[in-house]
Amino acid sequence: MKVHNFSAGPSILPDFTVEKTAEAIKNFAGTGLSVMEVSHRSKEFVAVMDEAIALFKELLNIPEGYSVLFVGGGASTQFCMIPYNLMGKKAAYLNTGAWANKAQKEANLFGEVVEVASSKEAVYNYIPKGYEIPADADYFHITTNNTIYGTEIKEDMDINVPLVADMSSDIFSRPVDVSKYALIYGGAQKNLAPAGVTFVIVKDEILGKVDRQIPTMLDYRTHIKGESMFNTPPVVPVFAALQTLKWIKEQGGVAAMQKMNEEKAAVLYNEIDRNPMFKGTVVNEEDRSLMNICFIMADEYKELEKEFFTFATERGMSGIKGHRSVGGFRASTYNALPKASVQALVDCMKEFEALHVK
Amino acid sequence: MKVHNFSAGPSILPDFTVEKTAEAIKNFAGTGLSVMEVSHRSKEFVAVMDEAIALFKELLNIPEGYSVLFVGGGASTQFCMIPYNLMGKKAAYLNTGAWANKAQKEANLFGEVVEVASSKEAVYNYIPKGYEIPADADYFHITTNNTIYGTEIKEDMDINVPLVADMSSDIFSRPVDVSKYALIYGGAQKNLAPAGVTFVIVKDEILGKVDRQIPTMLDYRTHIKGESMFNTPPVVPVFAALQTLKWIKEQGGVAAMQKMNEEKAAVLYNEIDRNPMFKGTVVNEEDRSLMNICFIMADEYKELEKEFFTFATERGMSGIKGHRSVGGFRASTYNALPKASVQALVDCMKEFEALHVK
Ligand SMILES: Cc1ncc(COP(=O)(O)O)c(C=O)c1O
Ligand SMILES: Cc1ncc(COP(=O)(O)O)c(C=O)c1O
Ligand SMILES: [Mg+2]
Ligand SMILES: [Mg+2]
Ligand SMILES: [Mg+2]
Ligand SMILES: [Mg+2]
Repeated sequence: MKVHNFSAGPSILPDFTVEKTAEAIKNFAGTGLSVMEVSHRSKEFVAVMDEAIALFKELLNIPEGYSVLFVGGGASTQFCMIPYNLMGKKAAYLNTGAWANKAQKEANLFGEVVEVASSKEAVYNYIPKGYEIPADADYFHITTNNTIYGTEIKEDMDINVPLVADMSSDIFSRPVDVSKYALIYGGAQKNLAPAGVTFVIVKDEILGKVDRQIPTMLDYRTHIKGESMFNTPPVVPVFAALQTLKWIKEQGGVAAMQKMNEEKAAVLYNEIDRNPMFKGTVVNEEDRSLMNICFIMADEYKELEKEFFTFATERGMSGIKGHRSVGGFRASTYNALPKASVQALVDCMKEFEALHVK
Repeated sequence: MKVHNFSAGPSILPDFTVEKTAEAIKNFAGTGLSVMEVSHRSKEFVAVMDEAIALFKELLNIPEGYSVLFVGGGASTQFCMIPYNLMGKKAAYLNTGAWANKAQKEANLFGEVVEVASSKEAVYNYIPKGYEIPADADYFHITTNNTIYGTEIKEDMDINVPLVADMSSDIFSRPVDVSKYALIYGGAQKNLAPAGVTFVIVKDEILGKVDRQIPTMLDYRTHIKGESMFNTPPVVPVFAALQTLKWIKEQGGVAAMQKMNEEKAAVLYNEIDRNPMFKGTVVNEEDRSLMNICFIMADEYKELEKEFFTFATERGMSGIKGHRSVGGFRASTYNALPKASVQALVDCMKEFEALHVK
C-alpha cells in the first residue's frame, strides 16, 4: 500500500532528496566515503555548503546585505538567540499559537515584551488584525505559519520596526519579499531537510547593536564570519537541504511551489467545506494555511472521529491526527506532498461520506 | 582503491552504521517512509530514541541518578551551557588545547575562571600535572582527548569538586567510571554518529543550583524533562548513533573497543618511533592519545613532508594532514577504523623509508 505522508514535521521530502541522500550515505561525491564520514572541511563538503547557501539566496531572491546561515539547535534555540542578539529594551510579539508563545516567553528574559495581539482565546483559529506595534520596539516577531492551528500570514508586512519571522513551516512555499524582514528563521524539517538543521536569513546591519555579551555560539556574527562552519555543521541535513533546493529550482522555483500548494489546498479545503461530515477549524479564508490543513468532524458526526481516523489510516493516510490542543485532523501539504496524496485523502472523505450520509 | 579514512571528525563510522542508515533513508522500520520524513513522535522513532538512551547507559555502565541527553548545537554550544547551568561564582579549567581554551573562554561570561594549568607554551604537546584545583570552584573542566594535538587523559580523576569533561573525541573508546563525573559531553561526530547530535551525560542533582535565569533550550532540565524530545531532535544522527551503539555492543562493548584501540595505537606509535623519517609530537607515552596520533617528519627529512603526504594519499590514506597549528600528520584511529587501515599507513611509512633512507 502506498503511504501518503501528511506528517506535520519532520515531514515528506521530495523523492529526489531521499534518493540522492541514500546514495551519498553510501558514497559521497565519488570520495568512496559516506557523507556521514567526511570532514566538513573537505573540498567536497565545502562545495555542498557553498552551493546550498547560494541556491537558498537565489531561490528566495535574497538581496545584498543579508546572510544565510545553517546552524543547529532547532527553531526553539532561535527563540532565545533572537532577543539575545536583537533586543535592547523592548520587543513586540504577535501571539498566534504555541510556537509564537514560546518565542515570546524567551524574550521575557531579556527585556520588556509587548504582546500586540493574541488569538489564544479562540484556540488560535484566526490571525489577529488591526493591532498597533510600539514604535520603540527593537523588533516585531511573527510566526508566519502556525503549524498546529493551520493559520498562515501569507503576505509580507510593511511595518515600522524590524520584522522577525519564524517561517519554520512555510519557508519556500511561496515567494517572500525578504527585504521587508530583518530576520527569518526556521527548523528545516518541514519544507527543506531532515531535522537537525536550522536556517537563518539575517540582515547584517541589524547585528551588533545590543550591549550584552553574547555567548559565542549564540551570536549570529560567529556563524556569519564562520560561514556556517565555525563548528561542525550538521553535515547530512545540510546535504539533504541542498538536494531539496535543487529540486525546488527544477520544479520552477518558489512561484511554482506556491501555485502547486494553492491548488492542493483548494482541493482539500473545498472538500472539507462541501462534505457535510467535516468542517475546517479555521474559518476566515485569508487565514487558512496552505501548509497545515486542520479539520474536525461536523457536530452531528463527532462520535465518528476515531472511525474516520482508522478508515483513512487503513487506506494509507499517515500523520493526519490533529495536534492534541485542537483535536480532529491535520493534513500537512508541504511542497513535497504530491497532488495525488491530497486526492487520496479527499477520496477517503468521500467514501466515508457515502457510508454514513444518507 | 580502498580509501582509509583517518579523518579527525566527522570521521569513520562502522560499515554497520552506514548500511543500516542507508536502508532507513529509503524505508525506516517498515513504515514505507524515509527516516528523514517520519515524525519524531511516531512510535517507531520514539523506540529509536529510547533504545539509544538505554544502550548508551548500558555500554558506559552509567549509574542511577544520571540522565543521557541528545541535543543539537555541537559540543561548542555546551561550552556556554555548562557555565550557564553550573557556575555560581567560580569555575576551574585545565587548558590542554584549542577546544579546552574555547570552553574556558565562554565561562568568562558567567563568573571567575581559574586556569589551573596550561600546556599552551609547548603547543599543547603534553597534559599538565600537579596543579591545584580551588576547593570553592563550582566545577573543574577537562578535555579528555585533545583532538588537534593528540594528547589524552586516559584515567578518571579523583578530585574535590564536580568534574566536567569534554569527551567529544574519546567517548566509547574505553570504559569510563561515570560516577566520578558531574557531566560528560561531546559532539557525536567522532566515535558515534554523523555530525548534528551532541550527547550529554549529566548527574541530575548538580542542576538547579544557580540563580540566573536560563533560556529554555540551554537549560539541561528542559531536555531531561522532555527526554531529548522537547523540540525536534536531529532524527537521522540519533538513528545512526543507535546503530553504532549496537555495533559497539556486538563487538564486546567499550572494553573490547579499548583493547582494539590500544593495539592499533601501539602499531602506529611503534612505527613512528622506529622509523627514522618520522617522530611523534607527543613525547610522554602516558599522554599519547589512542584516538588522534600526531607525527611529523624527523628534522633531517623535513623537506619531504609534502612528498609523504602525496605518497600516502596516492595509496588511499585520507584525512591524514595534521591540524595547521601543529603541522605534519594526524592519523585518527577511532573505534570504527579497522586495524588494516593502520597497517596500510604503516606500510606506506616503511615503503617511503625504503625509498629515502640508505
Ligand atoms: C512554527 C514552528 N516554530 C518552531 C518550531 C520548533 O522547531 P524545532 O523543533 O526545530 O525547535 C516548530 C516545530 O514544529 C514550528 O512548527
Ligand atoms: C575535543 C573537542 N571538543 C569540542 C569540539 C567542537 O565540537 P563541535 O564541532 O561539535 O562544536 C571538537 C571538534 O572537533 C573537539 O574535538
Ligand atoms: Mg517519499
Ligand atoms: Mg463541511
Ligand atoms: Mg566505511
Ligand atoms: Mg621515528
